[in-house]
Amino acid sequence: MEQPLIEARDGRGVVTLTLNRPASFNALSEELLAALQAALDRLAGDASLRVLVLAAAGKAFCAGHHLKEMIAQPELAYYQRLFAQCSRMMLALQALPVPVIARVQGIATAAGCQLVAQCDLAVASTEARFAVSGVNYGLFCATPSVPLLRNMSPKQAMEMLVTGDFISAQEAQVRGLVNHAVPPEQLDAEVERLVQAILAKPREALAMGKELFYRQREMGIAAAYQLAAQTMAANMMEPCALEGVQAFTEKRKPGWAQ
Amino acid sequence: MEQPLIEARDGRGVVTLTLNRPASFNALSEELLAALQAALDRLAGDASLRVLVLAAAGKAFCAGHHLKEMIAQPELAYYQRLFAQCSRMMLALQALPVPVIARVQGIATAAGCQLVAQCDLAVASTEARFAVSGVNYGLFCATPSVPLLRNMSPKQAMEMLVTGDFISAQEAQVRGLVNHAVPPEQLDAEVERLVQAILAKPREALAMGKELFYRQREMGIAAAYQLAAQTMAANMMEPCALEGVQAFTEKRKPGWAQ
Amino acid sequence: MEQPLIEARDGRGVVTLTLNRPASFNALSEELLAALQAALDRLAGDASLRVLVLAAAGKAFCAGHHLKEMIAQPELAYYQRLFAQCSRMMLALQALPVPVIARVQGIATAAGCQLVAQCDLAVASTEARFAVSGVNYGLFCATPSVPLLRNMSPKQAMEMLVTGDFISAQEAQVRGLVNHAVPPEQLDAEVERLVQAILAKPREALAMGKELFYRQREMGIAAAYQLAAQTMAANMMEPCALEGVQAFTEKRKPGWAQ
Repeated sequence: MEQPLIEARDGRGVVTLTLNRPASFNALSEELLAALQAALDRLAGDASLRVLVLAAAGKAFCAGHHLKEMIAQPELAYYQRLFAQCSRMMLALQALPVPVIARVQGIATAAGCQLVAQCDLAVASTEARFAVSGVNYGLFCATPSVPLLRNMSPKQAMEMLVTGDFISAQEAQVRGLVNHAVPPEQLDAEVERLVQAILAKPREALAMGKELFYRQREMGIAAAYQLAAQTMAANMMEPCALEGVQAFTEKRKPGWAQ
Repeated sequence: MEQPLIEARDGRGVVTLTLNRPASFNALSEELLAALQAALDRLAGDASLRVLVLAAAGKAFCAGHHLKEMIAQPELAYYQRLFAQCSRMMLALQALPVPVIARVQGIATAAGCQLVAQCDLAVASTEARFAVSGVNYGLFCATPSVPLLRNMSPKQAMEMLVTGDFISAQEAQVRGLVNHAVPPEQLDAEVERLVQAILAKPREALAMGKELFYRQREMGIAAAYQLAAQTMAANMMEPCALEGVQAFTEKRKPGWAQ
Repeated sequence: MEQPLIEARDGRGVVTLTLNRPASFNALSEELLAALQAALDRLAGDASLRVLVLAAAGKAFCAGHHLKEMIAQPELAYYQRLFAQCSRMMLALQALPVPVIARVQGIATAAGCQLVAQCDLAVASTEARFAVSGVNYGLFCATPSVPLLRNMSPKQAMEMLVTGDFISAQEAQVRGLVNHAVPPEQLDAEVERLVQAILAKPREALAMGKELFYRQREMGIAAAYQLAAQTMAANMMEPCALEGVQAFTEKRKPGWAQ
């Protein structure tokens, strides 16, 4: 059987992880969750990684948890482990020191929609649609509600959670769930545009910035400014910024941008 | 004199509370606040309740506090009691274990706008308009600012609060203050569409989900995920989810959805 | 040499602070930061101040930190002091007891974009553009991310921070970074419209309201309501509200609005 997760890497440090269970709409089976966690754990320490793209094979992006597998083991302890495992993987996306871009070519439902919400950036095909549909089978999308509520207004999130209704990619873009919604034939070009913009920046600055971004979000504004000011001072002492700012004042490109 | 609040219940467990002081634009008099609180306290323990619709009689939805009553008792202790009473009622809407839908047929100002902001969902007629207009008579809409700021971006909320200006129902929809803005003749149909979507879901799943939604909103993301994962595991052990997921894997409707 | 900051005051209590280093695109040099801080410290205790407008001379609104000055002193302690100084000034805008309106006539980048994000309200010319572009020279806009993330959805903020790309004034309006985007010839009229709306309200009510607004934002909803209810009761006991509410019930203008 083919691997549940395909990892591709190009010479620029761009890694693409492709969910590869198209027959089950890339449902997050334990096997797939474990493969994702293993890949993220490995990539977290990989200094050559510059951008992570999260993609999917087949027509669907991800249909959420693997319900057949779930119902086969109707035990509280099992479900606690399963949702904890899934949440750990979601948080690993946030903890990764490079930007993570979701490439959403098809429907993203329940934990699949959560995956999109949890990534730093997302580009969707106009053929993609989004729902947190667990409530349709009696299981409120509790963990998906965590990043969903941090991506759009509470009434918009609540409506999706209690109705299970789909929203279009365009609507997802307006609400802030995805950055861009483009025709399917432009999906790769739009992802590549973001990738190139990121590759043109120093890795250290992005790593310091991403960590700060999510940490300060949970703070009051005075504490947030204090941490941000410290982060920015430390960033300024990095060779990339000392050279970048120097180059800017001399109206030339930084050495690292050649 | 007619009752300040009319309660109607249909055979499906849908309760509609209608503010019934049209002559005073449904201002939240002590009488009306007490009637709302009593109704919410009773409904909180009513296991047959499935959805609450908050509606209003007459041309206005709700004009906020009852100013004539307020100015008749110019004492700090009285105002402290009054605003605490009102805040308690607002929080009771959030604490109710079923979704609460505001049906907004006309203008909603000050604490009337707050009422809309505090509901889980809201549908507005395109004839409705929204303002937090207390500042026009020297009283900044402090308590309305609490849910308002949790429904739209801070600059948008601040502009409404310092100018007292109205926004249209369409603008309210774009900002996230209401879910849908429809022509007045479609208002009931649009509310009914939401009601039916909610009735098609198990009550327990919605109750667990709604409580989790507002609790996790106040947490850092790691703690939010932890609570959400526990909630979801507990939800999965409920008969509704065990049956719902089983039915889904067998491509049939759940028993509770017949 | 001309002053870095020009202060103009009209007879209504409207103070306009104009960044006046057009040749350096109003970069926030230490001199300009110190001038801003001194002005804000003075204005904080000025009971005749009613509205603050933050404007800029020349083509750019503000290009962020003064990079030439920064690179001349490559020491951690210096950068820590600099970013702390800048953050202190930003927080002083929030602490000021009157509404602060950014009048954005041209590009606002890095800490210049932060300045717009930190103001209570903002009106932009359609010729203005916004970016948090520090990452282009290796310095992630950490402190700008603090108010940026509090003005727009996280994915929209993250994209700006990691790409350094510009957004238009219209896009800034849709996201909530500015309240209005108008043709350049209407910029002053649109600012004046907001100014007049604010001047028509009592200063005390706005001061109590603004302070409450930012304090309650950092609280859980129950604590937020408690503080808001206390604030509103105290506001109600102010002469402006007692007279305003009385006047409203008598269908006349309040004395302070004559």
